[in-house]
Amino acid sequence: MVDDNRQWLLRRRPTGPLTEDVFELRRTAVPVPSEGQVLVRTLCLSLDPANRVWIMGPSYRPAVEVGAVMDGFALGQVVRSEHPGFTAGDWVSGDLGWQDYRLASGRALRRFVRQPGVPLSYHLGVLGMTGLTAYFGLLDIGRPEPGQTVLVSGAAGATGSVAGQIAKARGCRVVGIAGSPTKCGLLVDGLGYDAAINYREDDVKAAIARHCPDGVDVYFDNVGGSILGAALLSMNIGGRIICCGAISGYDSGEPLPSPPGIPSLLIGKRLEMKGFIVLDYAARFGEGIAALTGWVNDGSIVVREDRVDGLEQAPQGLIGLLAGENVGKRWVHIAEPEGPQAS
Amino acid sequence: MVDDNRQWLLRRRPTGPLTEDVFELRRTAVPVPSEGQVLVRTLCLSLDPANRVWIMGPSYRPAVEVGAVMDGFALGQVVRSEHPGFTAGDWVSGDLGWQDYRLASGRALRRFVRQPGVPLSYHLGVLGMTGLTAYFGLLDIGRPEPGQTVLVSGAAGATGSVAGQIAKARGCRVVGIAGSPTKCGLLVDGLGYDAAINYREDDVKAAIARHCPDGVDVYFDNVGGSILGAALLSMNIGGRIICCGAISGYDSGEPLPSPPGIPSLLIGKRLEMKGFIVLDYAARFGEGIAALTGWVNDGSIVVREDRVDGLEQAPQGLIGLLAGENVGKRWVHIAEPEGPQAS
Repeated sequence: MVDDNRQWLLRRRPTGPLTEDVFELRRTAVPVPSEGQVLVRTLCLSLDPANRVWIMGPSYRPAVEVGAVMDGFALGQVVRSEHPGFTAGDWVSGDLGWQDYRLASGRALRRFVRQPGVPLSYHLGVLGMTGLTAYFGLLDIGRPEPGQTVLVSGAAGATGSVAGQIAKARGCRVVGIAGSPTKCGLLVDGLGYDAAINYREDDVKAAIARHCPDGVDVYFDNVGGSILGAALLSMNIGGRIICCGAISGYDSGEPLPSPPGIPSLLIGKRLEMKGFIVLDYAARFGEGIAALTGWVNDGSIVVREDRVDGLEQAPQGLIGLLAGENVGKRWVHIAEPEGPQAS
Repeated sequence: MVDDNRQWLLRRRPTGPLTEDVFELRRTAVPVPSEGQVLVRTLCLSLDPANRVWIMGPSYRPAVEVGAVMDGFALGQVVRSEHPGFTAGDWVSGDLGWQDYRLASGRALRRFVRQPGVPLSYHLGVLGMTGLTAYFGLLDIGRPEPGQTVLVSGAAGATGSVAGQIAKARGCRVVGIAGSPTKCGLLVDGLGYDAAINYREDDVKAAIARHCPDGVDVYFDNVGGSILGAALLSMNIGGRIICCGAISGYDSGEPLPSPPGIPSLLIGKRLEMKGFIVLDYAARFGEGIAALTGWVNDGSIVVREDRVDGLEQAPQGLIGLLAGENVGKRWVHIAEPEGPQAS
């Protein structure tokens, strides 16, 4: 146990693309829990495109305040508990923030059961928020039928890579959009996608038409912007668009322009566009984790992770994530578990 | 029976706001049905914002061809039948076009049963396509709960006026948006809306906030454009937007700009936007007509119609409709029914 608590604070709101000086590292004493509180050691910190949204201003959640510890979803282990519901050594997840230790109320934490035979970090990704995002978005909003065509953007990312593989497991034709030849190669050769489009090099609209000869029935959108615009033109009558993220606009400091054709394309093609936040499905997380665990265990879902080492690398890790550096789930390794459950 | 057939042809595609010279009146002989054909006399011709879309280019249906008779949904009566499924005097609806007589295959026609005690034209409006559009759009896509707030644009039009009254019958707070003090007065004093907004005079966003203090749960959009943009900002988490029409862009010759915030507002507020065409619900028309008939008979739905007299007035009638001249369902009276069922 280290004897100080490193914390990344939000120094100022970014006005354009994120830079490291938006954050500031501080060292404080490890806090001591009072009655009803739990001291948690952060082990695996999630980096997500949504982090960039949280520091911009209020969104679906209040903005991170300037001067406060940067928010971040993470896995941790209880170090000391003054709360009857938690014991030292418990695995917990929650918004532990960009810091070594968080002093939390019981309400802010969720205990979880480690799945046997998989790395701890899977509970952050494929069996955690991003896997559940893919699961509920694709199946609840997208409702793909076997034989239908599913298009996924951000397809090599944490959510997209899982969404596409679930669609394959459901018997769909799956086409992914990603930002490099390496990612496109991985999609087809490693993850079983039927085809991949490199949006930095290809004419996206033409490539969608080429790879989706029967049109697109379900579009899982992680990016928004012009790729959403191209997908809209390729949708079949009665298609569903899952509005999961809009990373193409998060780091610009400017509002992302809406794609053309709203609402006329929605009417003419009878399209459904629906946005969601994975926490809306909290009551069904058990169902999702069980299904995802099954697909991981039987090899239907191949997991790709992108590990960043050390809390001090969190800002650069997020900057790189927003630039599309990562393949699969990006997370920050902060510490190894301790105690008998560590294995 | 007149002895010639007046037909409005599409002379050219309009490039900007519709003008009468886009159409051309021709007189031809009344055609004679061959084996399998039906000769129908057009009685009530529907004028709909969608007519403007049909002459622009291909949409959810092929464009009306230049030189062809203008398409139009209408009610008519069989004059002479060489088809085993139809008899002279039958009431039929279908795309009879802007003409006195249509020679049709049986497939192009739908027989209907006149409801007792209501004018024939109701089968074009409140008990026809526009009433059914309101019914399925509001209830199937909007799914309003009692006590929720429903916002309707084009609220004094054929579809909007019915949608708002169905929402009132369901126990919702209903706020309408229309384009004149007369229409706004009608909404509140005649149709039971809780409040009305005149988009030509009011600051729409501020007026929505004032009249929808609990936010908007369901927005029935007939107009698109900036009013859709204002509504998007007022939606509650989990709200539904029914994309029914986009009349604000139909007559400009320019594509309508999309409202800002797509997809980010959809994600943050978990909104559903869904487009539809009433014909998608053809299998359930019986259910809709029965429900609408009940509401008309018990006074829950007050019907407003806007009659234009004479086929020669069809172009001006459509031009005025696109300018927002009408209150309630606009239709063209072409001829009176004949025979024993005429009453």
